[in-house]
Amino acid sequence: MCIQGGVPMDFSSYFPIWNKLTPTQQQILERNAVLRKVDKGTVIHNGTVECTGLLLVRSGQLRAYILSDEGREISLYRLFDRDICLFSASCMMNSIQFEITIEAQKDTTMWVISADTYQRIMKESAVVANFTNEIMATRFSEVMWLMEQIIWKSFDKRLAEFLLEECSLEETNILKITHETIAGHMGTAREVVTRMLRYFQNEGMVKLARGTVEICEERRLQELSDT
Amino acid sequence: MCIQGGVPMDFSSYFPIWNKLTPTQQQILERNAVLRKVDKGTVIHNGTVECTGLLLVRSGQLRAYILSDEGREISLYRLFDRDICLFSASCMMNSIQFEITIEAQKDTTMWVISADTYQRIMKESAVVANFTNEIMATRFSEVMWLMEQIIWKSFDKRLAEFLLEECSLEETNILKITHETIAGHMGTAREVVTRMLRYFQNEGMVKLARGTVEICEERRLQELSDT
Repeated sequence: MCIQGGVPMDFSSYFPIWNKLTPTQQQILERNAVLRKVDKGTVIHNGTVECTGLLLVRSGQLRAYILSDEGREISLYRLFDRDICLFSASCMMNSIQFEITIEAQKDTTMWVISADTYQRIMKESAVVANFTNEIMATRFSEVMWLMEQIIWKSFDKRLAEFLLEECSLEETNILKITHETIAGHMGTAREVVTRMLRYFQNEGMVKLARGTVEICEERRLQELSDT
Repeated sequence: MCIQGGVPMDFSSYFPIWNKLTPTQQQILERNAVLRKVDKGTVIHNGTVECTGLLLVRSGQLRAYILSDEGREISLYRLFDRDICLFSASCMMNSIQFEITIEAQKDTTMWVISADTYQRIMKESAVVANFTNEIMATRFSEVMWLMEQIIWKSFDKRLAEFLLEECSLEETNILKITHETIAGHMGTAREVVTRMLRYFQNEGMVKLARGTVEICEERRLQELSDT
């Protein structure tokens, strides 16, 4: 067990269905969970590594994205405290036939559980298997939402939504983010982002400066993203 | 048990993990599975119905797609003999937060299992829960593949791929399909499809007639889709 700021930060209080596990299962998990700290920007998992293991975020933020052959990215979802990343342990399930990259979006502390360990428990425990099902359904829902956005929502709406979400995550109205980074998140080219941001600026919704995007009229961006 | 053409066509021989179920679970499933026949074109499930139940295809073909507010469609995946559709029973899992439509692509015979029944067995059986996990991972993989196609592959490649897949499914080189229908499958407008098919025709790869697309040079379409 590790202590941070006087608060016990042990694995058991972070693993969502801890109380539903048998003592043996608890012991196996606790013994095999390895606490790991990574700096912002670290690539924790990618397609070339088959099985990094399950990741349970203690603090920080992870980002899952896919990468095209030409190196273009698109963000799929983010993981926050207590979230579990399954797809970094995709060797666990034969039917997972896609590759994602997981990167630390902020300095992150997380537990890594080997796929073997988790799979062993999941195979014998209906509770763990059903829990895993719910995690997968959550990620699936996020990806479906994203796909609908990409197919059917025009780029101005997606960009407005992205800026509002970033503000809410960072708890600020002045985002420190480059157009290049936004383009990476949204699977588009930097020029497309710059053009749209300039349009937003002309409309008075944002103010641009080197490396920052300031949100001036949240309400109008919200209206745009809602339509 | 029903007999078709002298062959026993009972539920147990169609349900993939039948032998791993307990006799009680087998009994519950068999007693609650309702055989249903639908004609080609029937919408079996959509977002307004919360829980149609799990579908196990005996024969025929189902298509899962999403629908935009403006009525545009995009095909997500198809289900064939012995395939199971989970998302027509999305009430089973809290974390499934998206809506799909399921339509019979051909005359189809299938068993419908109520979500209650399946959920009851899944909650107690690690085997069924893990099996369900694999089904979801399979669909997830199909959707991820589709998303990568949409984001990163140009339309000519996607159309070539679609035509080749249809030929292989229908076991013919002359597809009876309208441009409108193809557009529906691919989430685009009819004009876009017509323009690209005419380009393919000019290149000698296909021959167009009213309501049909004939594949003339499969090899070239294959090369196009592979690049």
